Amino acid sequence: MSYSEDRLEEGEVESLEAVVASSLSVRWLNLDGLHDVSILREIGERFDLHRLLLEDVISVGQRPKFEEYDGRLFVVLHMLSVDDVEAQIREEQVSMVLSGGKLLTFQERTGDVFEPVRRRLREASGRIRARGADYLMYALIDAVVDGYFGVLERLGNAAERLDGEIADDPTPDTARRLHALKREALVARRSIWPVRELASGLLRSESELITADTRIYLRDVYDHAVQAIDAAETLRELTTSLMDLYLSTVGQRTNEVMRVLTVIASLFIPLTFLAGLYGMNFQYMPELAFRWAYPVLLGVMGVLAVGMLQYFKRKGWL
Amino acid sequence: MSYSEDRLEEGEVESLEAVVASSLSVRWLNLDGLHDVSILREIGERFDLHRLLLEDVISVGQRPKFEEYDGRLFVVLHMLSVDDVEAQIREEQVSMVLSGGKLLTFQERTGDVFEPVRRRLREASGRIRARGADYLMYALIDAVVDGYFGVLERLGNAAERLDGEIADDPTPDTARRLHALKREALVARRSIWPVRELASGLLRSESELITADTRIYLRDVYDHAVQAIDAAETLRELTTSLMDLYLSTVGQRTNEVMRVLTVIASLFIPLTFLAGLYGMNFQYMPELAFRWAYPVLLGVMGVLAVGMLQYFKRKGWL
Amino acid sequence: MSYSEDRLEEGEVESLEAVVASSLSVRWLNLDGLHDVSILREIGERFDLHRLLLEDVISVGQRPKFEEYDGRLFVVLHMLSVDDVEAQIREEQVSMVLSGGKLLTFQERTGDVFEPVRRRLREASGRIRARGADYLMYALIDAVVDGYFGVLERLGNAAERLDGEIADDPTPDTARRLHALKREALVARRSIWPVRELASGLLRSESELITADTRIYLRDVYDHAVQAIDAAETLRELTTSLMDLYLSTVGQRTNEVMRVLTVIASLFIPLTFLAGLYGMNFQYMPELAFRWAYPVLLGVMGVLAVGMLQYFKRKGWL
Amino acid sequence: MSYSEDRLEEGEVESLEAVVASSLSVRWLNLDGLHDVSILREIGERFDLHRLLLEDVISVGQRPKFEEYDGRLFVVLHMLSVDDVEAQIREEQVSMVLSGGKLLTFQERTGDVFEPVRRRLREASGRIRARGADYLMYALIDAVVDGYFGVLERLGNAAERLDGEIADDPTPDTARRLHALKREALVARRSIWPVRELASGLLRSESELITADTRIYLRDVYDHAVQAIDAAETLRELTTSLMDLYLSTVGQRTNEVMRVLTVIASLFIPLTFLAGLYGMNFQYMPELAFRWAYPVLLGVMGVLAVGMLQYFKRKGWL
Amino acid sequence: MSYSEDRLEEGEVESLEAVVASSLSVRWLNLDGLHDVSILREIGERFDLHRLLLEDVISVGQRPKFEEYDGRLFVVLHMLSVDDVEAQIREEQVSMVLSGGKLLTFQERTGDVFEPVRRRLREASGRIRARGADYLMYALIDAVVDGYFGVLERLGNAAERLDGEIADDPTPDTARRLHALKREALVARRSIWPVRELASGLLRSESELITADTRIYLRDVYDHAVQAIDAAETLRELTTSLMDLYLSTVGQRTNEVMRVLTVIASLFIPLTFLAGLYGMNFQYMPELAFRWAYPVLLGVMGVLAVGMLQYFKRKGWL
Repeated sequence: MSYSEDRLEEGEVESLEAVVASSLSVRWLNLDGLHDVSILREIGERFDLHRLLLEDVISVGQRPKFEEYDGRLFVVLHMLSVDDVEAQIREEQVSMVLSGGKLLTFQERTGDVFEPVRRRLREASGRIRARGADYLMYALIDAVVDGYFGVLERLGNAAERLDGEIADDPTPDTARRLHALKREALVARRSIWPVRELASGLLRSESELITADTRIYLRDVYDHAVQAIDAAETLRELTTSLMDLYLSTVGQRTNEVMRVLTVIASLFIPLTFLAGLYGMNFQYMPELAFRWAYPVLLGVMGVLAVGMLQYFKRKGWL
Repeated sequence: MSYSEDRLEEGEVESLEAVVASSLSVRWLNLDGLHDVSILREIGERFDLHRLLLEDVISVGQRPKFEEYDGRLFVVLHMLSVDDVEAQIREEQVSMVLSGGKLLTFQERTGDVFEPVRRRLREASGRIRARGADYLMYALIDAVVDGYFGVLERLGNAAERLDGEIADDPTPDTARRLHALKREALVARRSIWPVRELASGLLRSESELITADTRIYLRDVYDHAVQAIDAAETLRELTTSLMDLYLSTVGQRTNEVMRVLTVIASLFIPLTFLAGLYGMNFQYMPELAFRWAYPVLLGVMGVLAVGMLQYFKRKGWL
Repeated sequence: MSYSEDRLEEGEVESLEAVVASSLSVRWLNLDGLHDVSILREIGERFDLHRLLLEDVISVGQRPKFEEYDGRLFVVLHMLSVDDVEAQIREEQVSMVLSGGKLLTFQERTGDVFEPVRRRLREASGRIRARGADYLMYALIDAVVDGYFGVLERLGNAAERLDGEIADDPTPDTARRLHALKREALVARRSIWPVRELASGLLRSESELITADTRIYLRDVYDHAVQAIDAAETLRELTTSLMDLYLSTVGQRTNEVMRVLTVIASLFIPLTFLAGLYGMNFQYMPELAFRWAYPVLLGVMGVLAVGMLQYFKRKGWL
Repeated sequence: MSYSEDRLEEGEVESLEAVVASSLSVRWLNLDGLHDVSILREIGERFDLHRLLLEDVISVGQRPKFEEYDGRLFVVLHMLSVDDVEAQIREEQVSMVLSGGKLLTFQERTGDVFEPVRRRLREASGRIRARGADYLMYALIDAVVDGYFGVLERLGNAAERLDGEIADDPTPDTARRLHALKREALVARRSIWPVRELASGLLRSESELITADTRIYLRDVYDHAVQAIDAAETLRELTTSLMDLYLSTVGQRTNEVMRVLTVIASLFIPLTFLAGLYGMNFQYMPELAFRWAYPVLLGVMGVLAVGMLQYFKRKGWL
Repeated sequence: MSYSEDRLEEGEVESLEAVVASSLSVRWLNLDGLHDVSILREIGERFDLHRLLLEDVISVGQRPKFEEYDGRLFVVLHMLSVDDVEAQIREEQVSMVLSGGKLLTFQERTGDVFEPVRRRLREASGRIRARGADYLMYALIDAVVDGYFGVLERLGNAAERLDGEIADDPTPDTARRLHALKREALVARRSIWPVRELASGLLRSESELITADTRIYLRDVYDHAVQAIDAAETLRELTTSLMDLYLSTVGQRTNEVMRVLTVIASLFIPLTFLAGLYGMNFQYMPELAFRWAYPVLLGVMGVLAVGMLQYFKRKGWL
């Protein structure tokens, strides 16, 4: 799929030559999937890309970065998406190469974060058509960065749910999911952090490929990246605090269980001893023959029990 | 509502043209509520604002920042307020645009942090009337930053209350509120941190819109922002320390409960065993027929109990 | 009280004019208490101080800082003192204004940190009399910073005492005091941290008011500030480590209590069951009639108890 | 073993003179083992190396670094390998000296991280033969840095296994292994962190020994180093979070054990008391003679037990 | 004791004049003990040292630093030694003043870290004699920094021992020693951290007293300082991790103790109740007269016990 300034041509690319030959001022070539090395090699030759650049495009798991290769701008980013059920993050590497009027983008899988940008391209009215390939690159980066907020919001909601669970009924599974959430927050942070550097690199770059006009928009990307980092950091601190809350809740519950046990055991063990005492079979136990011994003992037991309960009440255990 | 240097005109704005046309040297236009996009668009056209700037004004949740757009200064801030009952922070985004003699401010809701500034404007005696729009902007930023201290103080008071609660009677609810307080502290920190950068940006800006005189005042804003950050950080560390205190208090209480249980159980369980022993119905148990068996056993039990108590006292459990 | 280079005049100031008129080369005006706004206003007018500067002097709770206001040097510091019984820190704001030959100092309360400086001034022999007002300012700042070490040492001693208490007999009160100590450490840190920046600001300042000679001494203040920060940070880490120690001690004690309970309960509960078994009143229980049943049962019980004790010994619980 | 541009000569080095005399443009001398000081001294003299440089080569445990010694580039690195069974890291120091066309490398032991580079050298087709000694150095550094990812991945897998173990059956051994893993992560971090500085030093170096072409490749090394640091930091945070998870799991299990104990003890201790009560041998206990006393008591006991169970169910302990 | 370039004169200094008058090119004056203020004052006058410098020399507890005083280089360092039994660190302040050809060193106590340097001086063959006083200073600083590694290694060994102790048998004393170790690590860190700054200050200093040749050696000191900092930080993280391990071990042990208690109590308490039931003395208890009641009850008890054990086995408590 490729597009141009005042006309829009879109479709599956038949041959690279057609793209190179196109007379339209802005051409966008998007490649989904990185399996077919031969295509990549062909693209590399057609567009005269550095070998290291192509390697970075192919080797998934790159750190997001911005680089200049002899007059070309090269950007690597991670698109994040989150799977709602398990709140597990899926990273997808996106690479972009900008060279005068041409923008190449490489995606790991067929994604749809770029769909809104495509729609804006199709609607002839938008500003996006009137501008160069650098603005298109900005729009795509912005789309990726905007995606981070959605992901962080979902993780935030998962944290919210776990918060409620801890309040209602914390189970070992809650701790497990909390740990998983923290791991996801770490993954997200690792993808988002370098974007700030990337954006500031683009901003400070003296390449002529980026117009002053687009630079203003890139400042916006930078701001959003910083904001996403803030949100990721807050999320991380929140999960740590939630783990503390979980531990304190479990500790408190153990305390509560212990209190019930202690109250009941402390109440009945002495009484049971007294009962056991008069259950002994000694022949000479004068009390056994007393007429009022039984009711007196019951009274003593009652006093003892009431005293204990009072003590526990004063301790605040009841 | 708008005001001018030596005369003061205030009121609901009828039409934007009147504002633009006003001959008074300083004009302040405050917009409450961001729902009506058409008004915003009109303002944008009248005052020739950049599209991205307007977008930042509308999209709530921006990171506080300072930017220059072709000769205009643009500031985004968060006003914080705290609701006393639940100690929950409410953020409100405020945007300001300064361009020669004109100050536009945009608020999310009808707030009243700016009220003191308005009052000072109305009192003709104040310095504020004698100065330019840049001083007005300073005064408004200062009002927002001053508001942070009130918010942090209330959170600090909430921490103080929780501290007392932990000392008196820590419940799971205490931990819950502590966690909520920490979350609020994180929210506050996220709003306050970027203000330092904002203030230093304003200070270092070479824009002619800010007079040397106002710059001295902006240094004050910077100092206040740093002070607010210090306070927010201290609050965060305090809540962490309080959580530790809570955990240690709960642990100590469990320990205390355990000690009571252990003392009582250890005291009576052996005695109960002895009583049970002489409650057995064997036909040949010579002790049962001894005349002094019962008092001797009672004596043994007493000695055992006293020994146990002594042991517990030495252990420091009583 | 004011002093001069080769003569020393000291005393309560009658009128500000006398001070301004004094022909002695160095004049020091110290104001205790900030309640009387009229005096402050008069001083402000006499010495031509900026309005913001006066505001900073009055509003207690400023962050320590160094600023230059049209040729005047302005320093805000916190004097710390600690109350021995509760190890609670008291902050007092000190502001200094240096302008050619004149030094104004403002204190919240009547303090005595400056007393040693005054004594050195009175003793004509010291170097301090031979030097300018900038050296006097250095001497006063140095006195304040030196005071930090005393405060940190006392907090360190309190930490030491708590350390001993945790070893001997940790109570919930220990944890409480530990938390209070940590809070004090945070307060101290907040006062001390900015002094480094302040000192480096003074060092880098290009003001002519500070002679090259005094600059060497200011480097010393900087070193001391850094040292105080190191000490404050170490104190903070120490209190955190002490809280961990406290928690571990309490956990260990709970463990110990549990072990005693478990040993005694596990020893006697099975024996009590056996005794209970032969206390049943079934008509057909052949063992009851056996001649050797009782001693055999006692033997079984003994073996059981010894086995249990062996098991516990192997587990290391005895 | 040495190699040259268009021809490849490989083999054990007989005498250093042969190496020095070789006319091939790139010579690589690799020394395995650092025991034989005399060889090192001879090399030092032949290649005119600084005494400190030789010392750094010999003294194992150096911090990774990059230095320039009169026109020579000196690099110290740690090769990491991990032993799969115990997940224990083994560090091996590698030093490289680059001087126009000659590359000396020193290894502690006979390692095989460089094998792939050797293979590429042997295959005449690769780019590596067509380039200078600086590219060879890059290739070797890259091989070392690439090795870090393998090590970190194995540690990550160990963390994953421990995660599963905590979920299934956490034993004290799990905590022990977790601590060991953390220690290994710290070791890895200590080796990896300085590589970033090293790479940026090489990049910024103005030495003529590094061609512009190779510099692009070194940027790649820098990126990989930063990525490895990210991974090491994430691993560290993960182990901390796992320890929290472990503690919470153990706490939860204690809670569960306590609940079972409390339910059973609270259920039967009061019933045992009642049974003990009617096992007493008082002569005047009217209930004993009642016809329906026994079934009524059994009913009371049943009601009590059911009530208790209901209470525990409501508490969520069952 | 003093020494010179090609001849070596060593001995107790009789009079300072002899030292000043010595014609040998390098003179080293080492002063052990700082009690005798008069000597210090005399040295100060002879060598024309700044008053602040002398004060820094005398006042023990200075932060390590590097300073230039009118053409003289002044270095303050801490020598660390560790006492093997208690793993307690002893700090000793060392000050050095370098001025053209003369090196003054001041030690708190009679130390022997400098002994190897003295030995190298005595052996005429070493390089050290052929070089200037700046090289001597480097050699002494290097000796001090090398000493750090020994200290850190001993602390590391202590950590290792505590690690083993936690595995075998953690006692409250283990936690106590762990805390003490952490305190020592903090002390060491406080002494070592500033040395990096000191070394980089020396490196960047433009003083002519340091020759280009010595500068290369100072780079080595810098590297060693950074390495020592790394080691100290790792040690600190290790002690924190060990404390976590200790807490988890104690928690696990409590859990284990609880499990034994729960298993035994849950097994026998219900059986004891049953025994108690048939120990009651009601006149109308039909079961008591049944012929098979006793063996049936024993069977029921056995089944109950087996069932319980099965349940505990399924729970993994056995």
